[in-house]
Amino acid sequence: MSTDLFARHRETLEQALRAIRTREYWSAYPEAPSGRIYGETANADGQAAFEARLNRPFPIDQPGTVGQAGAETSPYGMALGITYPQVDPAALLPAMQAAMPAWREAGPDVRAGVCLEILHRLNRRSFELAHAVMHTTGQGFVMAFQAGGPHAQDRGLEALAYAYEEMKRVPETALWTKPQGKAEPIAMAKTYHLVPRGVGLVIGCSTFPTWNSYPGLFASLVTGNAVVMKPHSGAILPAAITVEVAREVLAEAGFEPNLVALAAETVGEQRAAAELALRPEVKIIDFTGSSRFGDWLEENARQADVYTEKAGVNCIVIDSVADMKAVARNLAFTLSLYSGQMCTTAQNIFIPRDGIPAGEGRLTFDEVAGAIAGGVRKFLSDPERAAEVLGAIQCEATAERTDRAAELGEVVLAPEVREHPRFPAARMRSPAILRVDAREAPTYGRELFGPIAFLVATDSTAESIERVRATVREHGAITLAVYSTDDAVLAAAEALAMEVGVALSVNLTDGVFVNQSAAFSDYHATGANPAANACLTDSAFVAKRFRVVQSRRHV
Amino acid sequence: MSTDLFARHRETLEQALRAIRTREYWSAYPEAPSGRIYGETANADGQAAFEARLNRPFPIDQPGTVGQAGAETSPYGMALGITYPQVDPAALLPAMQAAMPAWREAGPDVRAGVCLEILHRLNRRSFELAHAVMHTTGQGFVMAFQAGGPHAQDRGLEALAYAYEEMKRVPETALWTKPQGKAEPIAMAKTYHLVPRGVGLVIGCSTFPTWNSYPGLFASLVTGNAVVMKPHSGAILPAAITVEVAREVLAEAGFEPNLVALAAETVGEQRAAAELALRPEVKIIDFTGSSRFGDWLEENARQADVYTEKAGVNCIVIDSVADMKAVARNLAFTLSLYSGQMCTTAQNIFIPRDGIPAGEGRLTFDEVAGAIAGGVRKFLSDPERAAEVLGAIQCEATAERTDRAAELGEVVLAPEVREHPRFPAARMRSPAILRVDAREAPTYGRELFGPIAFLVATDSTAESIERVRATVREHGAITLAVYSTDDAVLAAAEALAMEVGVALSVNLTDGVFVNQSAAFSDYHATGANPAANACLTDSAFVAKRFRVVQSRRHV
Repeated sequence: MSTDLFARHRETLEQALRAIRTREYWSAYPEAPSGRIYGETANADGQAAFEARLNRPFPIDQPGTVGQAGAETSPYGMALGITYPQVDPAALLPAMQAAMPAWREAGPDVRAGVCLEILHRLNRRSFELAHAVMHTTGQGFVMAFQAGGPHAQDRGLEALAYAYEEMKRVPETALWTKPQGKAEPIAMAKTYHLVPRGVGLVIGCSTFPTWNSYPGLFASLVTGNAVVMKPHSGAILPAAITVEVAREVLAEAGFEPNLVALAAETVGEQRAAAELALRPEVKIIDFTGSSRFGDWLEENARQADVYTEKAGVNCIVIDSVADMKAVARNLAFTLSLYSGQMCTTAQNIFIPRDGIPAGEGRLTFDEVAGAIAGGVRKFLSDPERAAEVLGAIQCEATAERTDRAAELGEVVLAPEVREHPRFPAARMRSPAILRVDAREAPTYGRELFGPIAFLVATDSTAESIERVRATVREHGAITLAVYSTDDAVLAAAEALAMEVGVALSVNLTDGVFVNQSAAFSDYHATGANPAANACLTDSAFVAKRFRVVQSRRHV
Repeated sequence: MSTDLFARHRETLEQALRAIRTREYWSAYPEAPSGRIYGETANADGQAAFEARLNRPFPIDQPGTVGQAGAETSPYGMALGITYPQVDPAALLPAMQAAMPAWREAGPDVRAGVCLEILHRLNRRSFELAHAVMHTTGQGFVMAFQAGGPHAQDRGLEALAYAYEEMKRVPETALWTKPQGKAEPIAMAKTYHLVPRGVGLVIGCSTFPTWNSYPGLFASLVTGNAVVMKPHSGAILPAAITVEVAREVLAEAGFEPNLVALAAETVGEQRAAAELALRPEVKIIDFTGSSRFGDWLEENARQADVYTEKAGVNCIVIDSVADMKAVARNLAFTLSLYSGQMCTTAQNIFIPRDGIPAGEGRLTFDEVAGAIAGGVRKFLSDPERAAEVLGAIQCEATAERTDRAAELGEVVLAPEVREHPRFPAARMRSPAILRVDAREAPTYGRELFGPIAFLVATDSTAESIERVRATVREHGAITLAVYSTDDAVLAAAEALAMEVGVALSVNLTDGVFVNQSAAFSDYHATGANPAANACLTDSAFVAKRFRVVQSRRHV
């Protein structure tokens, strides 16, 4: 069974290996929530599967279960009523360790085959996952399907491919034959074992419970480690489905299902992640969430390698534009998508106070501000489109922050409480846009998570660039965008991006947005500024998840 | 000039890339200190070059020089009388940072060419380096030539090859073309910049000032970082020559020589490494030395990635042997070589107190002990050979520890103060071998650096294995050897090696010794036990030394 899986998915793996070499467009899992691809009944089946989960315990038969936890509420209004196993790490983790020797012994090909089958089955359950992601994160359905399903699966596969390639660079054996002049050469047979580190802990976030967790999950698992998933207390269900699928495939392939486990807790408890993170069995931690807890993990979980994606302050520099309408359309979508609750959404848009050159003729600051605000207003004027694009606000604190946003600057666009056409209790807000002066760095220079954007008036593009440099150096960022028709400014932006270690998007006006990060092509985060200590998709993310232990003997 | 260098050394790099893929025997730099290879006058020239260094300042024209430091004394008896620039990090490090943009911009091929030329010139100066290493570390001349010259150069090239391959896995550009059904595809041009981390700090040890430092030096340099070498105050000269060669090649290739700099200090000061390690400019630290300072670096230099090789307690398990004489001959060399001052030398030899099966018939514990002690005695009975193999003791503390070794257990072989045939003031000691009981773990379970070995009497091989497990888990190890004619015992040793993450040598009796680690084939350290948090020769050692920063724009 387990070698069959490798053969079955080998072509997918080989394509993924080619894709990470070229970083050209490729995707393993179709992003369209289409019955023609996923089956005519897939949507209805997925919704039914989701609904069948509600108001009952989610069954995962894992060791160390000491109770039930979980009290998720959909940002669209209803309580999910699902509970999950609450675990005693002192009982669970040793059981996970005990499962590892056979998993290590199986080798990279068998492990890759099992992981690819897990991804394949997750893909087949993308509609169920979409509903689960939608009703925990607040994402609109199509986004929940794409980001929570195929895009997350692609990111998992991408990390798997990097890890597989890294393992395959270590030969299994070598015959070492050292010449000795005219004497017989010395010959030794050497064996190189790939040895896992221990239990990997994946700590998820409330907004992207699968997309941000799958790279760590699959990178750790394929390299021979066990993985315990500790989802955010507000978004457990997508992780629980993932764990269920993984355990099912592992068991069918003849492995101990305890190689993957779930550690859930109820909203407001906030103890389980820290407790797990300090356990001696835990040797790898993947974390997405607040800078406060991410920094705490880096500082305190010293027995583990810690990979963090934390808060950042993403910036845009507008210097000059060929077509302000096109820019405004692009930014309207960027600022609206999932109500700004993406780690890649821009918060600060730096614009010279004296205005900018544009294809339409010179535009004043207010005209640029008006174009952006007008673009958002127009884009969200259709309630159906607004509901689908904005989705709902994941947590009350973000909604409250948005409601108070007018205090932060001169209001260019006031946030609105919106009503969802189908979920009247949904927690919906449209974006707030504020004008501030560049000197007000204490206001705009920190992350204000949610649909809050600043138009920052600067003396010049040179000042804009300096302000971005200072902001990103101190607070980090995952994305940076620049709009300019001046090659010198674009070169300065490119140099800035390298200096502060942030991905740059240049003059986005068509169907690509600064907050989109495409698997197999876009490197997500860099590890080179305070927003993240790792990139989710490179060799450095995977290379330390196993070690090489050799033995040698005379031949 | 700089692209020429890549072309000139390309074949060497390609062979190195093949070697790290197969881990079969390969070496770039001939290990024989032979006039036929290095030129008939190479030895005399090297000695003259070394002697010309003595009793004067070593000239390195680098920024931030605030005085002179250094007071090295040869373990063979004479003061070297050389001083080196003492630096102000606040002046030196910004100058090194300023040199990095052009170095980054040059790209991996040009940087690799320059680094390969540095290695090539170091190789041509192997005789001079041999004298420098001999008269700082105390190694015998041939060992100083090999370990300090070609073997160190091979290790540098090996790390360079891993880093080069890792960089080359990132494409420079990609055309990302995403299909849009019947509409025009979305096309974006992406550029992937390799960005260095900052200044690398290489903190050397007193016993292998080049071998243990070159992997970090070349891994950091080729990935675009600047590197400051902080050698041990007792072994500055080999690092200073290295820095001199690197600066010379960098300048000739049109780069700022300050990409490589030296930070020296006088014996007993012990401030410079800690001061440098906490500087914000320093983003990578490679350290070889004590566990105390290595742990301190890991704990405190939080702005940097820290790679450490620290103390360990290497073990041998003797279960059964085909030929005790052959085993004893092998161990005699292992225990004698460089007076046990290698990070790979065995300290604890576990033997069942009831004796072992042997090809010669059953041997009692005392017979095994006698064979080992007799082997050492016989091997060192020739004063010329003893002088060449033992070398001298690097520091007085190690000599004193050896002199007091008889207090540690029942003396099987008493250490002797030896006289060197050509250096009457040399600090020489022959190995001490003590018998202890397995229960005396507080005595043998810590590193006692130098020529001190324990024969540990256990109830059984099963207990031997348990004792090794406990020792390595707590104190770490870089090597483990087992002697057994029983496949079940060999399998248990292999499982133990994987569990505690230590390289295993099986039944070494011919011309390979547990303390030898061959570049391009043996992985040095694992990063999986307390003796080292990294392997010196794998992807994990290099992958984080640069980051990928992308930019993208519509086509």
